[in-house]
Amino acid sequence: MIQEQGSFAVGGAISYTPGTYSNNAPTSAGQSIHGDHLYAFYQVPQAPKSLPIVMLHGAYQSARSWETTADGREGFQNIFLRRHFPVYLVDQPRRGRAGNSTVGTTIEPTPYDQLFFDQFRLGIWPNYFDNVQFDRTPETLDQFFRSVVPNTGPYDAGVISDAMSALFAKIGPAILFTHSQGGGPGWLTAIKSPNVKAIVAFEPGSGFIFPAGELPAAMPSAAGTLSPEAVSLADFEKLTRVPVIIYYGDNFPAEPTTERGQDNWRVRLAMARLWVDAINKHGGDARLVHLPQIGIRGNTHFLMSDLNNVQIADHVSQFLAEKKLD
Amino acid sequence: MIQEQGSFAVGGAISYTPGTYSNNAPTSAGQSIHGDHLYAFYQVPQAPKSLPIVMLHGAYQSARSWETTADGREGFQNIFLRRHFPVYLVDQPRRGRAGNSTVGTTIEPTPYDQLFFDQFRLGIWPNYFDNVQFDRTPETLDQFFRSVVPNTGPYDAGVISDAMSALFAKIGPAILFTHSQGGGPGWLTAIKSPNVKAIVAFEPGSGFIFPAGELPAAMPSAAGTLSPEAVSLADFEKLTRVPVIIYYGDNFPAEPTTERGQDNWRVRLAMARLWVDAINKHGGDARLVHLPQIGIRGNTHFLMSDLNNVQIADHVSQFLAEKKLD
Repeated sequence: MIQEQGSFAVGGAISYTPGTYSNNAPTSAGQSIHGDHLYAFYQVPQAPKSLPIVMLHGAYQSARSWETTADGREGFQNIFLRRHFPVYLVDQPRRGRAGNSTVGTTIEPTPYDQLFFDQFRLGIWPNYFDNVQFDRTPETLDQFFRSVVPNTGPYDAGVISDAMSALFAKIGPAILFTHSQGGGPGWLTAIKSPNVKAIVAFEPGSGFIFPAGELPAAMPSAAGTLSPEAVSLADFEKLTRVPVIIYYGDNFPAEPTTERGQDNWRVRLAMARLWVDAINKHGGDARLVHLPQIGIRGNTHFLMSDLNNVQIADHVSQFLAEKKLD
Repeated sequence: MIQEQGSFAVGGAISYTPGTYSNNAPTSAGQSIHGDHLYAFYQVPQAPKSLPIVMLHGAYQSARSWETTADGREGFQNIFLRRHFPVYLVDQPRRGRAGNSTVGTTIEPTPYDQLFFDQFRLGIWPNYFDNVQFDRTPETLDQFFRSVVPNTGPYDAGVISDAMSALFAKIGPAILFTHSQGGGPGWLTAIKSPNVKAIVAFEPGSGFIFPAGELPAAMPSAAGTLSPEAVSLADFEKLTRVPVIIYYGDNFPAEPTTERGQDNWRVRLAMARLWVDAINKHGGDARLVHLPQIGIRGNTHFLMSDLNNVQIADHVSQFLAEKKLD
């Protein structure tokens, strides 16, 4: 039961080429290009709750992350619509339907299927983890791989969070869900916009920001070194004004390992714990849920589309209820 | 009132790189990439009609073409949902959320705003046509320009129509709406799939196909020469099995002109007339509606989002009713 739905672009830049435009012999001269905006598709259900949910995808993904799951079940878009939240799905600047960029790029058809299988913790290619919350039919894996989309311009957390901030300015107070790489721009959005009323971060993977002078040590892993990033204390403290919950799934190694796909997440979980501690030390309200510690097993990197995604949504709903955000 | 909604990828290819995949030191070796599929978002309204409508966008566009208009009104997605058609919105292969391509490309941030203003017949930059069915506020023009998205791989009507054919195989009999450049892949889709039960083409701009040996002369214009393309007689005759209606808007020049943006469409309209004649000569059921000739004035290249888009939708509904497709 949808009361209203639609889409729009918001934020972004305009790049102008000097010169005089010639209508009948056009070159770049005197022309402009609009780019670096985000694209949002929104739906308002009947009897809507007052705070919408804005969902921001991760790397190599689009808003499709939140739609139908790879095995054809309902994703968080429909689940939270059924729970009466207005839902805004974002394609971030330079991705998907927000593809126009003011900065160019080259797209190579990089074969990453097997790397993604490992890094998104479906298993260790070609074997699934025994307890994995992912349907093992070939059709599901095919759909999963086909959710990948390339960047159409350089990845820039500043550009993304500027457009996200413009979105929150347009729609007013709302809850922000982020996935993976979206975590970093998510924190920056909450710094830039007072309309971000809570953050639910699913497996944030980059952009862990700390106050300058309080940075923890970088963390080496089999997938490279994860370094914290510095922001001003004043900006960091803006993150202490809203409740934050962070979720991580299963099959994280307890100790350093040579398994690249898993070790990548060991350090992210460790860094996220330090981040939560720093937020709370500065008077904030952050919480980290490592799902296996509350008995929820087998989750991949895509918690919101895993086989138990209704259970994950239930946990999120409970958090939103506790914080009186629903 | 939506009964069901969701999204999926369909069609496409898998490209394999020879070698052995190394989980912990991954390179391209032994990996694959899934690409060249299309992405579809579908909604089924309450009390649905039996034939869904599939909407395929044009050049530089995505499924957003059919969603909210640049000035914030409902587009053909919502209008035809309200008329109880299930609606499938497509991002074609190598565009938008179907961005993964098996062939690489370079994206330059080409400044085309002013060229688009002319070529999409909003007016002659910087002046709107006097009668234009386009809201003249700067915010609307900003949204219009931000609907542009780049190709993420080479444009290939064969790749697009293959994926579209796979879509029609998956969903069954349906009506196909195309816009602009989508016209060409649209004809090819109807040749490839017997599930295309009708075609409604809004300002088809390329891919005018004729039986080999029956090609009309190429048509020079101020925007370049438009050449017809040859297909086998057997393939062409497949297009005679389904009703086809083609719409063109206003501000076409009657005679050749140096105005590039308008002259581009003079030859397309002329070629479309020859195409309709050829279809009908071969026993088909094609009709061309040049809107000014039935008293509908001021339409741009984007008929489905113009200020009078409900009037355009009414005409389409009447066509579908006449052909007993609703």
